[in-house]
Amino acid sequence: MTRARLETFADGVFAIAATLLIIDVGVPSQLDEPLTTALLHLWPQYFAYVVSFATIGVMWVNHHRVMRQLERVDEPFVFLNIGLLLCIAFVPFPTRLLAEFVRTDDGNAAAVLYGITMTATAVFFGSVWLYAAYGGRLLHPDADPKMVSGITRSYAPGVPIYATAMLVGFVSAEASALLYGLIILFYMVSSAAFGSDQE
Amino acid sequence: MTRARLETFADGVFAIAATLLIIDVGVPSQLDEPLTTALLHLWPQYFAYVVSFATIGVMWVNHHRVMRQLERVDEPFVFLNIGLLLCIAFVPFPTRLLAEFVRTDDGNAAAVLYGITMTATAVFFGSVWLYAAYGGRLLHPDADPKMVSGITRSYAPGVPIYATAMLVGFVSAEASALLYGLIILFYMVSSAAFGSDQE
Amino acid sequence: MTRARLETFADGVFAIAATLLIIDVGVPSQLDEPLTTALLHLWPQYFAYVVSFATIGVMWVNHHRVMRQLERVDEPFVFLNIGLLLCIAFVPFPTRLLAEFVRTDDGNAAAVLYGITMTATAVFFGSVWLYAAYGGRLLHPDADPKMVSGITRSYAPGVPIYATAMLVGFVSAEASALLYGLIILFYMVSSAAFGSDQE
Amino acid sequence: MTRARLETFADGVFAIAATLLIIDVGVPSQLDEPLTTALLHLWPQYFAYVVSFATIGVMWVNHHRVMRQLERVDEPFVFLNIGLLLCIAFVPFPTRLLAEFVRTDDGNAAAVLYGITMTATAVFFGSVWLYAAYGGRLLHPDADPKMVSGITRSYAPGVPIYATAMLVGFVSAEASALLYGLIILFYMVSSAAFGSDQE
Repeated sequence: MTRARLETFADGVFAIAATLLIIDVGVPSQLDEPLTTALLHLWPQYFAYVVSFATIGVMWVNHHRVMRQLERVDEPFVFLNIGLLLCIAFVPFPTRLLAEFVRTDDGNAAAVLYGITMTATAVFFGSVWLYAAYGGRLLHPDADPKMVSGITRSYAPGVPIYATAMLVGFVSAEASALLYGLIILFYMVSSAAFGSDQE
Repeated sequence: MTRARLETFADGVFAIAATLLIIDVGVPSQLDEPLTTALLHLWPQYFAYVVSFATIGVMWVNHHRVMRQLERVDEPFVFLNIGLLLCIAFVPFPTRLLAEFVRTDDGNAAAVLYGITMTATAVFFGSVWLYAAYGGRLLHPDADPKMVSGITRSYAPGVPIYATAMLVGFVSAEASALLYGLIILFYMVSSAAFGSDQE
Repeated sequence: MTRARLETFADGVFAIAATLLIIDVGVPSQLDEPLTTALLHLWPQYFAYVVSFATIGVMWVNHHRVMRQLERVDEPFVFLNIGLLLCIAFVPFPTRLLAEFVRTDDGNAAAVLYGITMTATAVFFGSVWLYAAYGGRLLHPDADPKMVSGITRSYAPGVPIYATAMLVGFVSAEASALLYGLIILFYMVSSAAFGSDQE
Repeated sequence: MTRARLETFADGVFAIAATLLIIDVGVPSQLDEPLTTALLHLWPQYFAYVVSFATIGVMWVNHHRVMRQLERVDEPFVFLNIGLLLCIAFVPFPTRLLAEFVRTDDGNAAAVLYGITMTATAVFFGSVWLYAAYGGRLLHPDADPKMVSGITRSYAPGVPIYATAMLVGFVSAEASALLYGLIILFYMVSSAAFGSDQE
């Protein structure tokens, strides 16, 4: 397996998962209110679409940051990536549920499932990176140690942050959803700062 | 992030968003008229499919024109692109609504939403270009200044044109839809002329 | 626009259109017969899936054969390609209708629409090639004239063949569907022979 | 046809088929139980999603292993690949049926169809490899004979293993589904071992 072909496959899954999100945005086929009203009531769907699209986008950016440090890939690394992509491709399902149920009594279950998905994704992301950097010795020989430990540090909070937002979902679906949005906003801002620092 | 991987991801989203449009073209599962009649009544769906596919195609061509001028990309540029792709991937939703509602009382809401999506896309497109050319200094050192100001000029009318067609949607959904078609026809003709001039 | 990026976008549309075909294969959600029986009754769907997948596959092979002869691409060529891809991405819709209606009174409409789609695709395919080879002078300077006229000859029958199968659809949907299958079988056999001759 | 463009197309179909699997995971639109309960009852869907995603992932890894041995591709090889991709793109359909029916009286039909699909895929996979290695003489002149016969040996059990799991489906859908999961787990473990041995 070459790095290039893994990137093609991964880019495909990231792009498809993000673009499929729109399939689930929709108005009921039997409208019992004007379309304008129906569209305004859809705001949880727009919110979920934007948050999940941005989340997948940020993960794609981070995936590239990992890949760029590698000299080679091996089979265990590829299978960890398939696990990561399996989580990414799963995102449209909890997104759909969160959009549909966030304002109902079933919102907690949807918010928690969304959080479980994100936490699992973060676990796989961490595993992919830790295996590449430490377990599998896949890094470029001249990879900057400060860069490597910087990436390790920047991925460390992913799991506890998403696990916390997931736990909040047991209490309030709306608060949990808001947290998912804030997390990704924070990632985009800090990633832009981190990235422009490096390139 | 390299230019090449951003292009792969962007090409993926453009291609998927365009190809997903066909999912929403369909006849009712309970036909109460001959299929021939039903297929002839579908013309708003064919129109919306062609206009949105061509619009995404033209945007893809323009995205490439932008990318070709760049020496490098940075993280803010990548995030602006994710915003742009988020709008592109959203297009199937207003397309579906416009096709379904254009000839009903709810047509105005659909036409306006389509216009809002296109205007937002144009805003992001302009931002992507202005950041690349002026804010982020990402251009090739030897990029032709005439070419650069030519692109800036050619993108300038995007936002006001789509905003106007959107406003027309408040008055007449059909007129607004027709405008969306004419705009993209005009872009294709002028782009072909502009492009063959340059290459 | 470079040849490489046009190929990436085109490959994406070909691959997505082919893979989306499976979405439309399905059993009714309310089964009133054993699943085994329902699956056996689905054979028009399997047939339509295989024929359309193979058709898109053959067109992708031929698209590559065209692209390989080119030294460069220009904007009119790109827009002709967008027209071609618009037809390719449309294929899942008539495929779905043909599979659903071929054995009903509405079969003729479905078979004719399938034929119209294929004929339009063949028209665009011919236009793409004729523009590349003769109108736009995009060929490699050292392209083999025998190869060029061989491709021209091999694409010439596409439009009349599909137009004939479409006209048959007015009389018999089943005969028309059978012809679509035979056409693509013939193309695969002759393409394999032609291709191994050349490479 | 070049190896590179066949890989792009194949990677696209693998990535899309895998990512489309999530479309079929869903809760009924009319929930008559709490969402939490509904989500827990969905475990056959999660199982089917994970097994099919991993299966497509492993096949993608193996496809790359085949391609890496090749010096060139020819048209018969490309058409065998289209047949293989046709099977891969079909996987979402039996996956959906297996997830929906595994615990009902119709489970046997679903498990058998899943097995037929996997067996056909294994037949095409074997044909692709045997043609490349022996029939079409497409290998690199310096391909390691031990590697070549190693791949031949490792693909040999695919058809009988999947055919056996398919036959088990006539007796017990659950046992058959469990076998599909175990097969892919075994492939991942042995592939990781085989792969790290080679690279």
